[in-house]
This record gives sequence, C-alpha cells and structure tokens, in this order.
Amino acid sequence: MKVKRPTLLVDKQKVLRNIERIVTKAKLTGTEVYPHFKTHQSLEIGSWFRDEGIDGITVSSVGMAQYFAVGGWAEIYIAFPVNINEIDDIKELAESVRLTVLVNEQKQLTELIKEVSTAVKVKIEVETGASRSGVLPEDKDKITEILNILKNSHHEFDSFYSHFGHTYKASNREEVKAIFDTSYQILNSLKQDYEAFNPKISLGDTPSASVLSNYQDIKSVHAGNYVFYDLTQAQIGVCSEDDIGIALAVPVVSKNRQSLELIVYGGGVHLSKEVLLGKEYNQGIFGKIVNVHNNGWSSSLNGSYVKSISQEHGVIQVTPEVFERIEIGDTLGILPVHSCMTADCMRAYVSINGQQMDHFQGISRLP
Amino acid sequence: MKVKRPTLLVDKQKVLRNIERIVTKAKLTGTEVYPHFKTHQSLEIGSWFRDEGIDGITVSSVGMAQYFAVGGWAEIYIAFPVNINEIDDIKELAESVRLTVLVNEQKQLTELIKEVSTAVKVKIEVETGASRSGVLPEDKDKITEILNILKNSHHEFDSFYSHFGHTYKASNREEVKAIFDTSYQILNSLKQDYEAFNPKISLGDTPSASVLSNYQDIKSVHAGNYVFYDLTQAQIGVCSEDDIGIALAVPVVSKNRQSLELIVYGGGVHLSKEVLLGKEYNQGIFGKIVNVHNNGWSSSLNGSYVKSISQEHGVIQVTPEVFERIEIGDTLGILPVHSCMTADCMRAYVSINGQQMDHFQGISRLP
Repeated sequence: MKVKRPTLLVDKQKVLRNIERIVTKAKLTGTEVYPHFKTHQSLEIGSWFRDEGIDGITVSSVGMAQYFAVGGWAEIYIAFPVNINEIDDIKELAESVRLTVLVNEQKQLTELIKEVSTAVKVKIEVETGASRSGVLPEDKDKITEILNILKNSHHEFDSFYSHFGHTYKASNREEVKAIFDTSYQILNSLKQDYEAFNPKISLGDTPSASVLSNYQDIKSVHAGNYVFYDLTQAQIGVCSEDDIGIALAVPVVSKNRQSLELIVYGGGVHLSKEVLLGKEYNQGIFGKIVNVHNNGWSSSLNGSYVKSISQEHGVIQVTPEVFERIEIGDTLGILPVHSCMTADCMRAYVSINGQQMDHFQGISRLP
Repeated sequence: MKVKRPTLLVDKQKVLRNIERIVTKAKLTGTEVYPHFKTHQSLEIGSWFRDEGIDGITVSSVGMAQYFAVGGWAEIYIAFPVNINEIDDIKELAESVRLTVLVNEQKQLTELIKEVSTAVKVKIEVETGASRSGVLPEDKDKITEILNILKNSHHEFDSFYSHFGHTYKASNREEVKAIFDTSYQILNSLKQDYEAFNPKISLGDTPSASVLSNYQDIKSVHAGNYVFYDLTQAQIGVCSEDDIGIALAVPVVSKNRQSLELIVYGGGVHLSKEVLLGKEYNQGIFGKIVNVHNNGWSSSLNGSYVKSISQEHGVIQVTPEVFERIEIGDTLGILPVHSCMTADCMRAYVSINGQQMDHFQGISRLP
C-alpha cells in the first residue's frame, strides 16, 4: 500500500472488537454505555456503536454535541463543565436532543435553570485525584447546595461523575485497579452521604473501563479512547498493541544511512506533539512503526520508532534490516501515542479498504 | 472582551512590526525574504507581507503550496524534501507558479527530471546540526552527484539550504549566534568547495533571522515563526513577550479556590500539546496568561500560567489577586508556547477588531 500524503488508517475489525469487549462487559451488570465520541469524532465510526445497540453518547464540547445531534444522535452527554458563555447553544440542544450536562459550580446551575427551560439531566463532577476539574469531595457545603438547587429546579440530578484521569499515569493494570478503587470509594462515600438524593455513579476513563472485570454498582461508563486505544494505553497494559485501531500511514521521503534514520512526511500537525516516555526511551518517542499492507498493518517493528518530529517531518530510527528494505516512496505506518489527539489533527480517516470517513472539523468551523 | 469558545486572536500591529523588522534588515544587504507561511497558513495574513513588498513565499507542504497558489501567490518555495509520491501535484504546481523545491536525495532529483517538464529551481538541503534531514556536508560524493545531475538537467540549481533548527534549543542570543556561526561556516565551506556551480546560501530559522544584525552573504531568508513569535522564542531571547502576535482567548468555566486554579475551555486540541520547559517550571507549562481587552491584550501576568491541559480543558495556576478578580464566564488570553502549532490546531483567526481570518484547512481536506 502506498500513500501520497499522511493518511489516517482505521482497521474496522479491531475497532469493532474494542467496542464489543466493553459493551459485552457492561451488559453483565446492566450498566449503560455512553461511549465518549471525542476520540473518533466521526459519524461513520459512531454508527458502528449504534450497530452494537448503543444509542446514547458522550462528547467533550457543545460544538461536538451539535455535530452529532445533526448526525442523528438523540441522547447526548456533554462531559465538560457547563460553559455559561455557550448557554444559548445548550438551550437549543436541549430542545432537540435528550441532553445531559456536567456541573461543578453553583453558577453553572443557576444559569442553566434561568436560561434552559427544557429539562436536562445533570451530573455533578467530583474531583477524585486527577487534578483537573470537579467539586472537592470534602466540600460538602458546595455539594449540598448544588443538590438542593437542582432538587428545587425543573432539571434532574443524574449522578456523580468523575474522570479518573490519573489512571493514565499508572504503569500497570494493578496500579490502574488501585487508583480506580480509591477514586470509586470517594464517589461511593458521597453516594452514602447523599442517600436522600438517590445518587448514582458514572465514570469516564478507558484504563478503568478496560481493567475492571465488571461494572458492578456503576450506572454508566463514558470512556472513549478504547475505540482506538494507543501506545499510551498499551504501555499501561490495558490493551495490546494489536488492539490499536488506527495507524498514520506516511510516505518515506529520504534516508540517512549514517544514523539509520528514515525521514517521513508526517509530523506534529499530523500526529500531535504527544510524547510517550518510558525507561527504554531517552527523550520519549512519538510513535512506533508498523508495515502497512493491503489488509491492514503488521505488529510494531522491534527497534524502530519515531525519534523526533517537527511540523511536517518525522525522523524514524530504524534497524539496519528495515533501513535496507525500505525505499524512498514506500509507505510506513505509525501507531500513535495518543489516538484522540492524532485523530483531531488529521480530521479525516480512510478505512483499510479505502473508504473515506468523516471527522468533526473543529469549533473554528462552527458558525 | 468575552468569547464564547476558544478563539485565536491576532494583533495586526504586532505582526506588522515583526514583519517590518525582518524586511528592513534584509533590504540592507539586498537579501531576499521568502517568509515561511507554514506559521500562519493564512491568505489574509499573507497579504500583509505583500503590503511590505514581498512576492515570494515558503511553505512546508505541497498542499499548502496549492492553497497559496490558488490564493494568488506566484513564487513559491516548498521547503520540504521532494516527496516523490506527490510528483504529479508538483508537476502541476510548476506549470502554474514559479516553483522552487528542496532535494536531499538523487532519487528525488531524477523523478523531478523525469516527471516535471517545466523548469523549477532546486535547493539542496544540507544537514548542519539540527539532526532532521539534509545531505551530510562530508558526503561530498552525494553532493557532487546531485549537482552534476542538476547541471545536466532542465532544472536550475538555486542554493544550499539549511534549517538551523538547533537554534531553537539555545538558551540565549549568544548561543543562537554561536550555532548560526558554526552552521553557516559549514555552508560557506561547501560554497567554496563547489565554486564552479556558483552556489548561494539560504536559510530558514527564526532565531538566526532575528538575532543577526544583517544578512551579509545570505541570498534568501525563509524563516516564518517571527510573524507571530511565541513563548519559545521569548525564552530564547530572540523576541520580547510583547512581540507575540497571537493569543488564544478562552472562557473561564470554573474555579478551584483550594489550589488557586481556574479551569478554562481551551486544551490540547486548541493550543497543541507543545510544552515549554524551563528551570522555573516543574513539569513545563503550556502557556502564559494575559488579560484580554477590546484593543488587544496585556503583558503576561506574573505567577499565572497554564499548568496542565487535556483535550478540551486547561488548568491555569493563578495568583490570589487574579483568582479573586476573575469570574466564571470571563475571558483570559493564553500566549502560546509554539505559535505554528497553535495556529494549525485552531485553523482560523479573529483580529482584535473582530474580523474573521482564514487558515489552510489541512491536507485532509484536499481532494
């Protein structure tokens, strides 16, 4: 297989297997799956979830919600704290789909009550260790106030939500499990403290969703990265490299025999500058290398990796065997460090059968 | 000023000043300026260079060349090694604009001779220490062969070209100057060795272009980042923070009093994941913070910076004063670590007067 320019390939079989694994597990406990579409941002790939019986989704921005609403999704959760500057768009969305929003401030809620007349479901974001956003679990006054404002409004309390993002820093499955246990325990205590409000628990990270043997006592799972996985997830050990569902196909433009490097057309604007650190890499790497063939791609080539990138260039360190085999004009594949970011850079896919597939074009292209 | 969503602001006055400084310097020595449009990728911003008398430009991809050719630019240099898989597009471009290309392999040149019948100018890329791409200067056989193939073809040798990308790793202006001197010396020796071919020297990095007091003995300057500059350039000392021509305006969505953090709508898909390391930052930062007002933005706020980012979230560490002053729904500005990458993520601009401006939509949107 030969590409002209950097091209983001999707292997549908791998993606379907990744989706099915999570959906099957969720069925065991009747847990709802609202896959986070921020990873693929594609109507076509979204439809593969629908084929698995999914009809509710998660997104990370109001713009992305609009994209999928227009694309026919009627049950959407925006897993980003309500941005009060977008309240008009949220109001419009609430009128056209069954909307769930996320709050972590009283002010977000009062705006939502004042401006959005259609009832929406509201999750309360709790900070459980990821150090990003969410009400601190010890801030009981704030939680109580939010719950009471909500109770006296036309909107409905849905659940406590937390993205256990610190699982991304785990180095193995046991660490993921330990982080999950601690974080879940925080949510579970809140559940008991606020029993009168009948709280549920929902969560969002792919490492937990992948590692848990079942989703006992979890109302809904909102992870998204598992659709493609990536080298970060493989390094944690929550997937195998063979599960990775996308690869950036790039043309080789030149070769440097002295340093055993191949220069490819494919850089930071295609892969993103996301770096994978690890004790085996000096400065971190920007991807691993696979051979691309007509039915997909090989497993990663030992000793070959993306050593550095600039805007459009990738410098690939290879073994002598690969150096001799690969010629200028040949195509190599790069497994991404962070698939969400690579997909967002590329904003289009091609299946391994050559079918073009969409990706949301980003907020800059919204009206 | 209030934004609804992350919005990339451009301050035209700063940009014009940045352009003028380089153009004025180039005039002293009759050096040609072919600004690298990979930084802004905008027809509108490109037109500001035209107002300064510039009529030739540099781009980093064939797709970008097509964008600017359609936009009316007739003299274009693609400063990326000829990708033989795009030879048909290069052929078409050569028929519509005065094209200069870059080679570092004989095979690129033979394809160019075989497939592109319209004469183009050819630069030879030399590796001078950036460890990216280019013929090694000691590889005299290769250089001689390329020059001879070129001499016997219908294409024309233009100059030796090198992007002194290692200046980006300098920590001050003196180090930039030292790296420039060493790298220039490599090109200058080649110039003497190959006197019979009447070689010229052309170069591409913003740190050198900014630090040099004049461009003596340089045929053409192809730097581009100086149009906007960024925190990386300010840290090296080749610009002041006040020269930075773009800022990402973001809405504040929530506040965390305990940690003095503001959570903003603005993350890795807006800023890119480019990180600024420095001894004053623990893990690196993703931007500095400015107040945005109706006529532009303030200087950066001491003690406030983007501490971490995920796909759509930014976590901003602020001082107690800023924490008290800024409310949910307010707008802050972020000076980018690497302006080329931020502009490429955003793919649109708004001037501080509210004018929408274009950005190339990327290769995925090419036919």
